Amino acid sequence: MTPKTLDTIETPALVLDADRMDANIARMHAHLKALGVNLRPHVKTAKCAEVAERCVAGQSGAITVSTLDEAEFFAARGAKDILYAVGLAPSKLEHVRALRARGIDLSVITDNVEMARRAQGLPVLVEIDCDGHRSGLKPGDPAIVEVGRAIQAAGGEVRGVMTHAGGSYDCRSVEAIGAMAEQERRAVVAAAGALRAAGIPCPVVSVGSTPTATYAERLDGVTEVRAGVFVFFDLVMAGISVCRVEDIAVSVLASVIGHQREKGWTIVDAGWMALSRDRGTASQPVDQGYGLVCDADGRPLEDVIVAQANQEHGVLAHRSGDPSRMPQLPIGSLVRILPNHACATAGQFSAYQVVRGSRTIEAQWARLAGR
Amino acid sequence: MTPKTLDTIETPALVLDADRMDANIARMHAHLKALGVNLRPHVKTAKCAEVAERCVAGQSGAITVSTLDEAEFFAARGAKDILYAVGLAPSKLEHVRALRARGIDLSVITDNVEMARRAQGLPVLVEIDCDGHRSGLKPGDPAIVEVGRAIQAAGGEVRGVMTHAGGSYDCRSVEAIGAMAEQERRAVVAAAGALRAAGIPCPVVSVGSTPTATYAERLDGVTEVRAGVFVFFDLVMAGISVCRVEDIAVSVLASVIGHQREKGWTIVDAGWMALSRDRGTASQPVDQGYGLVCDADGRPLEDVIVAQANQEHGVLAHRSGDPSRMPQLPIGSLVRILPNHACATAGQFSAYQVVRGSRTIEAQWARLAGR
Repeated sequence: MTPKTLDTIETPALVLDADRMDANIARMHAHLKALGVNLRPHVKTAKCAEVAERCVAGQSGAITVSTLDEAEFFAARGAKDILYAVGLAPSKLEHVRALRARGIDLSVITDNVEMARRAQGLPVLVEIDCDGHRSGLKPGDPAIVEVGRAIQAAGGEVRGVMTHAGGSYDCRSVEAIGAMAEQERRAVVAAAGALRAAGIPCPVVSVGSTPTATYAERLDGVTEVRAGVFVFFDLVMAGISVCRVEDIAVSVLASVIGHQREKGWTIVDAGWMALSRDRGTASQPVDQGYGLVCDADGRPLEDVIVAQANQEHGVLAHRSGDPSRMPQLPIGSLVRILPNHACATAGQFSAYQVVRGSRTIEAQWARLAGR
Repeated sequence: MTPKTLDTIETPALVLDADRMDANIARMHAHLKALGVNLRPHVKTAKCAEVAERCVAGQSGAITVSTLDEAEFFAARGAKDILYAVGLAPSKLEHVRALRARGIDLSVITDNVEMARRAQGLPVLVEIDCDGHRSGLKPGDPAIVEVGRAIQAAGGEVRGVMTHAGGSYDCRSVEAIGAMAEQERRAVVAAAGALRAAGIPCPVVSVGSTPTATYAERLDGVTEVRAGVFVFFDLVMAGISVCRVEDIAVSVLASVIGHQREKGWTIVDAGWMALSRDRGTASQPVDQGYGLVCDADGRPLEDVIVAQANQEHGVLAHRSGDPSRMPQLPIGSLVRILPNHACATAGQFSAYQVVRGSRTIEAQWARLAGR
């Protein structure tokens, strides 16, 4: 049987270049090994057993999830140590307890006394806000110890402290990201110190974002790093120098279905249902529209982007808007579109078409579709 | 057994108020009946058999899809007459033929001679561009007849002409939408006339967008209307007076998981994976952020919106940004978030929690998850 190739499958499709992914994972493993910390990969990016397996190779085997559906998916595939890293809601307590009753060491997070009081039997990490970005308690807040005591009083276990330097996505230099990594480290180490000073054990000290994980110079006092997008990278990461465009491992394969030549538009069958509505590069120095367009072999077409997106239509155009600078792409031509945000784009598909630098599809890897 | 209610399910969840949906469908049916045309509902909004069934009641039973996965989903549930309304790509020819071989009257569209030449055995509609919005041939373009002849020469059938007034989403008054509806009508009627004048039969004359379907005053010469978002409506439609906020039938149920009180932030467990990244109201007079926040019964909280979204976190804030104007929403409070764009938000879920004006869940309706 002829092997499947990118030329013979229906479009749009999600392509994963496993050579690039392997290199991305190896780089992160080497960096964190040098810093002496374990990687607890955030599987929300890939939502794929084969990818997670490669991320935890040589690590403790622990993973991070962003939904209980992800916890179910990975528990069914052998994961035993899972951190659900979104603040716990009352409606999820029953499900969390059911997963734990099946022998999964599922830990949860909170930043408030109300949920801490309901932590009976649960390992809980106290969420710390290291950068004003989202949830969590400020490092010096006495509420950290109050939450810790409330967890213990409820019959729960204080598993540790965790933070996420989401603000690193807004950094505009490698130096700024390095400084953010140190700020992230200090925040959780200080919070862990406050708990310990109050007589509360704090075994886990957890940080994580792909930018800070990449540029952290020291992680003293930290026990684990959660990072996810590094497996695939994307245009937002390239835009802040966390990767190169040629490191991006996922792309959306699309077919040319029409032209509006006087406008310089080439229409493809990948719209925002395939690419997602993520416009993360809009606030960066180089706006990549809904994605950067490559040929079917993954080589960028100079300055061609997805300028507009409807549900199942993408409009390719030259960045300049000049129709004369748009390359000829006949009907049926295949392109590969690099995503602004790998988590969002991959989230629109239920499988990866796995290639290794060529158009031959070596495998199809299932992923958890949607949430 | 106690019936399930919105108070006892895990969040986030997609809630469908079927009373509102029924009223939206009845209104569209009555309007199109008065204009004497059939509704061929676009099922890409709901991707749900129970919703489609209500849309085709009293109509011909024909539907419109935006992907072949949708065609498969609805063919498996009894649909016989399906228009795939995205320009055909070569990679999909085999799949289209396989569906037709199973007895489905699947018709396709194109706006170019290259695909017309490959139309053997296929019913094809010629795509017309009525407003410069996307794909299609301009109404006066001689290529319309060339494409028609190429379809016939290839052994295909010219099923008709179709257009989509996507530009109506940018209209800012009911009068402008009415004028756009007439422009849409004239474009396809003219194209049908050109084909017929060349001796090419053109049985189907198809228009469709929810705004133009709502405000069309006459549809002489048109045989069918494709519209989709009218079943649920959304904030973008409310923003251009195509519906009222209280007509919006879908919302995302979310739980409060934290606060950053000094900023006036309330954090919920619905981020852009649940709400989508669609920011369609950003270009409208009233920007609704990532959605307008209601209480658990669906009543809007005055001027509270989802100001920011991460993957699984939403940040609720008062529209003014003033922390003192933010209502108290304790940990565990339930809110319902009205979406900017119903197609995008519903697309993030695999089921509807069906209610009728209360919190009691009367049914769960499956939907095609993702693409």
